[in-house]
Amino acid sequence: MRKVQRRNELSKQVGAIKNKLNIGVKDEKVEQDIRTFISKLSNEIGIDPYFAGRLLNILLAESTRLQVNEQDSQTQFESHLTVFMNAKKLEASGKKIIHMEVGEPDYPPPENVRKALSKVFESRQYHYSETKGITKLRTAIAQKWGNHVNADQVIVTPGGRFAVFAAISSLLSIGDELICVEPAWPAYRECAAFVGSTTKILKTTLEEEWNPDTGKLEDMISCSTKMIVLNYPNNPTGRVLDKNIVDKIVSLARDHSIYLLSDEVYSDYAFNGFTSLLGYGYEKSIIISSFSKSHAMTGFRVGYAIAEENIVNKMAKIQATGLTSVAEPMQYAALAAVEESSSENAKRMKRRLGIICNKLQEMSLEFVEPDGAMYVYPKLSGGKRDVTIIRKALDLGVAIAPGSGFGDCYSEFIRISACQPEDQLEKGMDLLKAAVS
Amino acid sequence: MRKVQRRNELSKQVGAIKNKLNIGVKDEKVEQDIRTFISKLSNEIGIDPYFAGRLLNILLAESTRLQVNEQDSQTQFESHLTVFMNAKKLEASGKKIIHMEVGEPDYPPPENVRKALSKVFESRQYHYSETKGITKLRTAIAQKWGNHVNADQVIVTPGGRFAVFAAISSLLSIGDELICVEPAWPAYRECAAFVGSTTKILKTTLEEEWNPDTGKLEDMISCSTKMIVLNYPNNPTGRVLDKNIVDKIVSLARDHSIYLLSDEVYSDYAFNGFTSLLGYGYEKSIIISSFSKSHAMTGFRVGYAIAEENIVNKMAKIQATGLTSVAEPMQYAALAAVEESSSENAKRMKRRLGIICNKLQEMSLEFVEPDGAMYVYPKLSGGKRDVTIIRKALDLGVAIAPGSGFGDCYSEFIRISACQPEDQLEKGMDLLKAAVS
Repeated sequence: MRKVQRRNELSKQVGAIKNKLNIGVKDEKVEQDIRTFISKLSNEIGIDPYFAGRLLNILLAESTRLQVNEQDSQTQFESHLTVFMNAKKLEASGKKIIHMEVGEPDYPPPENVRKALSKVFESRQYHYSETKGITKLRTAIAQKWGNHVNADQVIVTPGGRFAVFAAISSLLSIGDELICVEPAWPAYRECAAFVGSTTKILKTTLEEEWNPDTGKLEDMISCSTKMIVLNYPNNPTGRVLDKNIVDKIVSLARDHSIYLLSDEVYSDYAFNGFTSLLGYGYEKSIIISSFSKSHAMTGFRVGYAIAEENIVNKMAKIQATGLTSVAEPMQYAALAAVEESSSENAKRMKRRLGIICNKLQEMSLEFVEPDGAMYVYPKLSGGKRDVTIIRKALDLGVAIAPGSGFGDCYSEFIRISACQPEDQLEKGMDLLKAAVS
Repeated sequence: MRKVQRRNELSKQVGAIKNKLNIGVKDEKVEQDIRTFISKLSNEIGIDPYFAGRLLNILLAESTRLQVNEQDSQTQFESHLTVFMNAKKLEASGKKIIHMEVGEPDYPPPENVRKALSKVFESRQYHYSETKGITKLRTAIAQKWGNHVNADQVIVTPGGRFAVFAAISSLLSIGDELICVEPAWPAYRECAAFVGSTTKILKTTLEEEWNPDTGKLEDMISCSTKMIVLNYPNNPTGRVLDKNIVDKIVSLARDHSIYLLSDEVYSDYAFNGFTSLLGYGYEKSIIISSFSKSHAMTGFRVGYAIAEENIVNKMAKIQATGLTSVAEPMQYAALAAVEESSSENAKRMKRRLGIICNKLQEMSLEFVEPDGAMYVYPKLSGGKRDVTIIRKALDLGVAIAPGSGFGDCYSEFIRISACQPEDQLEKGMDLLKAAVS
């Protein structure tokens, strides 16, 4: 205890010095060295290295907290959701806003979903259901994904987000590390932070066409690394990875026995082909999907995960603890959607993204043409900041998501969502053009 | 590290000895003494006592884990859910089972819910909604509870269970303690365990008519105690507490600045009057309610919490991280139910509980007549064990929940649910009578 106290005193002083020199609190290299040392020491003296890692992590977390307290709080986080809320306020005051900030299709779910919903009450499909989801839905999903998947490897969740939450919080805990390729949907980081795990960022750049450097990835893996998160087709960049890169990542995961979370909610919107990670047959992979984007069913909150049964059972425990089961009427609605093709939605989305890309070319903004998903992620010119442009654009009548909502290094980027009819997209892009010039 | 290692070695030896002597691993008194000592020491040397508590807790948890590993795994947990699953299997093989194990009303939701559901698709009420729930629903709930509640103090969740989960996981963390009056719904313990908090049990007995001893409660409160959970009308006993007991509990919570989670999902089924904890105006209270029981809407998964806005905002952060928002169609269904009276349901439930009580009297089983909720919780005679009787009863055709699902000290009890029509209840009770005699 007295030693811990001396350590904390030192932390405060270090924090004050770092503050004067204007450098960040966390030093990943130093932390990694300490981790390696502790891991070695614990092996030598025969203490559980996982337990030693957890102890170390609490010490490091406490260090960071104390140092941050000594520094000024200056970071202000702006996401597509805050833009959405601001846009809603403007709308309430009578202003017309084109919504190109949120990833929510404007077209309706399939007609069969309407039919299924209309039968829910009479069919009394509104009771507690199995924790993992009703058998019919899990079976239909398993069949859709192919013969090698069985219903016990499927868990239906309230949205893809809860599948991510359940996977991360059942497989990771304090002291564990998650590696996330950025730019990325912030949910992965948020879920990791919720369980006290650390997120290590593998940064990708526009210049490298958003391809992750697998050499860097290999260097980042430590004995505390428990999971790598992939999300392709990617939100926000629209990229799909080449097979050789995915091969290398899967092989790294295998070698180090690391979970691979593959969020594939945009797989129905892949324009140049996409291969699910499921095909690798890696036993520590978790595939996430959802009806939200593919079938325009965001508000129904039905997603799912596919993984080995032992992983699914762990996720089911979280679901039982937090939710009992997923709303049964929504599961029957999803059941009606499983067999419905989403290819018309994909064609429509591709046309729309084409319109946005053309407009961006006219504006001479740099971007990588999306292979899929529902977004384009261009770089602003002349060192302009996302928040500045987004405020201007919102004043002009178009809501756009800030690039910095998808990672710390992307404040010169914006994310444009194609979830509007073509004429609205054209109009919105003209307003954006006015905002950036 | 070396000291920690010596501690762990010692733990294993202690575990082996405890195993030989057939005594439990955890010793709450000893743990409490250590906590008091560490708290004093950390104050003396100027270290954050909360941080010291967290460190201590990891050490204690590791101790317990190692000791448990040395002991034989012998506890087998049987809950009303496992009974339900077994009953379902028997039904699949053609056997007729009367379900008196699950707390799920057999009657339908109000007619207005059907109407609301039929409009969802045309009205496009299937989008992402506000994290806390749609404003209309929160406003309607706030109005129902009275003038002093505003919509920002309400958070709509996917079932009362997620409200419990969000409250516990946003307000408690590792090293914190939650006090739970047992017998109780296991969800509170499960949510506390999920965040690494310890649950301290305030045991109540049939002999004391399930009244908690507030003197004992006071003795249990430590500097690590962060929350007390109350659930009245109670699942499984049906008890409602006298005002003077609730007064004393609220006053204890105030004095020690402890959160009070009051799960009031059965408040519509209170036959002799019930006063919500909301009336106390205690700023650290969280009231949980739901449409599941009152309006027979279990499968819709809509519940809510009422608390000060700062607490609601913390819970909303968990909801945003795990769920984005609650399924919008289900929120509109709940909106249609808010104004619907549940008094007919309450009358029906009271009649049914009367039937069960009469039958139990004929069987000369001891029980406290329920003041509310949907259950009776009798004691088996002659030292009979719940699991034995429940297996017999299931063979005869009636499913009943084991008392031990609601706490470790209740294996001589069973929980009988009144969620069946009267003729079925009569028949089920006759089968139970055969099973116990």
